[in-house]
Amino acid sequence: MKINTPYLLFLGDAPDPLAAKVAQGICDWRPEFALGQYRLPGCQADMVLPDMSPKEAYAAGARTAVVGVANRGGIISEDWQAFLQEALNSGLDLAAGLHQRLADIPVLQETANALGRSLFDVRHPSQTFDVGNGKKRRGKRLLPVGSDCSCGKMYTTLALEKAMRERGMNADFRATGQTGILITGDGVSVDAVVADFISGAVEALSPDNADDHWDLIEGQGSLYHPSFAGVTAGLIHGAQADALVLCHEPTRTHMRGLPHYPIPPLASVMTLSLSMAQLTNPAARFCGISLNTSQLDADAAERHVRTLEDEFSLPCVDPVRHGVGRLIDALDDGCS
Amino acid sequence: MKINTPYLLFLGDAPDPLAAKVAQGICDWRPEFALGQYRLPGCQADMVLPDMSPKEAYAAGARTAVVGVANRGGIISEDWQAFLQEALNSGLDLAAGLHQRLADIPVLQETANALGRSLFDVRHPSQTFDVGNGKKRRGKRLLPVGSDCSCGKMYTTLALEKAMRERGMNADFRATGQTGILITGDGVSVDAVVADFISGAVEALSPDNADDHWDLIEGQGSLYHPSFAGVTAGLIHGAQADALVLCHEPTRTHMRGLPHYPIPPLASVMTLSLSMAQLTNPAARFCGISLNTSQLDADAAERHVRTLEDEFSLPCVDPVRHGVGRLIDALDDGCS
Repeated sequence: MKINTPYLLFLGDAPDPLAAKVAQGICDWRPEFALGQYRLPGCQADMVLPDMSPKEAYAAGARTAVVGVANRGGIISEDWQAFLQEALNSGLDLAAGLHQRLADIPVLQETANALGRSLFDVRHPSQTFDVGNGKKRRGKRLLPVGSDCSCGKMYTTLALEKAMRERGMNADFRATGQTGILITGDGVSVDAVVADFISGAVEALSPDNADDHWDLIEGQGSLYHPSFAGVTAGLIHGAQADALVLCHEPTRTHMRGLPHYPIPPLASVMTLSLSMAQLTNPAARFCGISLNTSQLDADAAERHVRTLEDEFSLPCVDPVRHGVGRLIDALDDGCS
Repeated sequence: MKINTPYLLFLGDAPDPLAAKVAQGICDWRPEFALGQYRLPGCQADMVLPDMSPKEAYAAGARTAVVGVANRGGIISEDWQAFLQEALNSGLDLAAGLHQRLADIPVLQETANALGRSLFDVRHPSQTFDVGNGKKRRGKRLLPVGSDCSCGKMYTTLALEKAMRERGMNADFRATGQTGILITGDGVSVDAVVADFISGAVEALSPDNADDHWDLIEGQGSLYHPSFAGVTAGLIHGAQADALVLCHEPTRTHMRGLPHYPIPPLASVMTLSLSMAQLTNPAARFCGISLNTSQLDADAAERHVRTLEDEFSLPCVDPVRHGVGRLIDALDDGCS
């Protein structure tokens, strides 16, 4: 799926800025896609973009209205439908990453069909894939692996793309989840493909490329997460990563959503991840650690970083506090 | 999904007995479900069952016509459609495990709707599942893991069910693939569920049970198969196995379908499988090895068995040559 850009960001009736994190991600990582915003009365989020009607946005060049807000349950609120309908009528496609599909709302599907617009429900892949074949592909690949879900893998990968491009390197983020797809307009939500095709979907997402090109493949889940490790395993095999980055949030006390599962030792995560990665790329190596220290003060963050550097003899950074330059240096140093 | 039994087995125009392996599996493992057979002209398979028309089969108590034959491509042959239509008209449901769905043939779906019959496309789960939660469930569980796909996991599991029941043990086979589902009338094709729900589907397939009850969960794929390891990983986490059985075919030179991937060392398969199994059941242990020696003569088979017993200090059997009794003895000996 390839979503047409730039976007009109729909912030809806977001009760707080966090509810608009998809829109915020687009503004942070693809500001050139963020043409304008549309807010309903009471909206508590603001991307500091021009407020535009769908008609104004289309005239200014926007091609897709992106639902940049999430609500409890992942449903498409009735309060949003007048906007969505107006966006289609104004010439815009629609894109959303919610559990409920835009395409399951008959009036939207009928309008889209009648006008030739597209509805992108990025959480629900519509493509079919071949099963993975494990054949070596040209180009270089990096994949973050986590001690848990939601510990900074997407942020780390997008930060790497930005920093590598600033250095003039040939690098592309490859989105594997709905937020990453909405941010970049492209990708495959690998947790939503049929189980037999996980690695095949990742192979399709990251095809042969130039020898000096880096695919920075968004990580998902954790091999130690009892709900989602199948996704992670297929992702690791399909990615054929040359370089792995360990992502970790040091204040987490248990696996996300599962209070009865402690966070695994980082050494175990690294050993298991490397063992699986080396099946499809025997040269796979860890190039560093990305630590999400957002819950720590500066002193505690530095202590954690130094402890992990000493323990694993790898560069360790918080992408927000330190940037990811040292991880890129480690790639140059032949980690892969 | 729960398919009504007994069955009329449709052997179609099977060009050889192997093409009817689903029907053969039902006759071998659930003979009480195999009421009769229906063959088209030229059929080269014979289950030595009464030949019956759909009407005769329904009158004799049959409730489902099972497509017990596969052809290249997994499509529903046009030559089969008259039979399938007649089966619906005679009162039978239809079940098949082919890539092409019965439900995608409009005349069959319309007839089924009109008459209130069910179409079971067991390769395509229609249920929805919760994501796995990894919570400890009551009862005991056994899971075979393989060095490769198609090396004897289903056969081993069904042989264990039969032998355990003959000993008066409380044991149930839990099918995770289309052949197993058609044989037993129940199960979930885990390679066909959405990736996020692999472990959750297995948890649903094998719920809380009596303390002395064994769920014998059909294995799938291999952690070392680059196409399908995601399925295997989620299956291992969802199964929470107390006992693992290593399944292996010793003459295989490469992973099924992937000539560029050698068969992994068995010690690696065991280490990786155990590492993943112990996440959701720290007590998981290997209780033995099941060797498919069908390609070896008796002497070579015995040599292989003795070599593996010595190497791994575990009972090793070929279920066909030796039965699986020694694997069950190992369960009693406290392997789990």
